[in-house]
Amino acid sequence: MSHPTEITAQPGTPFIEVVRDFDATPAQVFRASTDPKLVAQWLGPRELSMRVIEYDVRTGGGYQYVHIDADGNEYGFRGVFHAVVDNESIVQTFEFAGAPGHVTLDSMTYEDHGGLTRLRTRSVFPSVEARDAAVGSGMEHGIVDSMDRLEELVLNEQSTKTR
Amino acid sequence: MSHPTEITAQPGTPFIEVVRDFDATPAQVFRASTDPKLVAQWLGPRELSMRVIEYDVRTGGGYQYVHIDADGNEYGFRGVFHAVVDNESIVQTFEFAGAPGHVTLDSMTYEDHGGLTRLRTRSVFPSVEARDAAVGSGMEHGIVDSMDRLEELVLNEQSTKTR
Repeated sequence: MSHPTEITAQPGTPFIEVVRDFDATPAQVFRASTDPKLVAQWLGPRELSMRVIEYDVRTGGGYQYVHIDADGNEYGFRGVFHAVVDNESIVQTFEFAGAPGHVTLDSMTYEDHGGLTRLRTRSVFPSVEARDAAVGSGMEHGIVDSMDRLEELVLNEQSTKTR
Repeated sequence: MSHPTEITAQPGTPFIEVVRDFDATPAQVFRASTDPKLVAQWLGPRELSMRVIEYDVRTGGGYQYVHIDADGNEYGFRGVFHAVVDNESIVQTFEFAGAPGHVTLDSMTYEDHGGLTRLRTRSVFPSVEARDAAVGSGMEHGIVDSMDRLEELVLNEQSTKTR
């Protein structure tokens, strides 16, 4: 059973909100969001591969990775973890190397709804213009792909365990 | 010669912008903003003292400090440095322990205007409501005091050196 991905980007604001349900526990979704081997399997659009350079998910840690397209072009991303609460929430900065200085603050919360986890992601951009540029660059496709792939991964991990 | 502090908080946005000129070089203002012994002398309103617990100003570093009022009440703050470019810019997260989860992203740039440094601070709050609450809490007083004290410190450091 697949759930829809709800993306909200109110005009005139620097915010993007993403809500997605998973048929899994918060601990399962959180693990898939923090183990670098698992993150590399779902973060980003399907047509890109991902190489993790650093993924130190703890308060004060940092992360760095690149997305690679079919022609071998690399797109770098990095940030720091402001706060990490296991199985509950992550607050981190986010910067695309192609737009240096445009730093976004992302907050993820893993809500327990009894057998279902609601992942809420709130991104705060440095300006309305930066938010609009991100939306215009086709980030919706990347978000929906990411959430669908995260679901596939979590369900696959579950079935592997119960086998 | 003292310069005014310009604070801009457009209604309906989550932003606060502060602009202040200093009769000093970017290196002098930057040093006063990053050496914990100096930061403790100007950051915050005059009526509060400051105790620095950690102030590791580098990309990936963290900071933590408390403000203490006349009655001994302590107000804790912490964050991480997303990016630090010596004498040019700092991007950091900011969280008041009294409002956990309301994380702000602050960007400081030190512009060289030949004998004068323009410090621009841009704060991006997680919501318009959080920004309005900060403005309503009298943060303007704290900002103006901080900028005035930073100027006094920088000018004092200069005169100490030329003596």
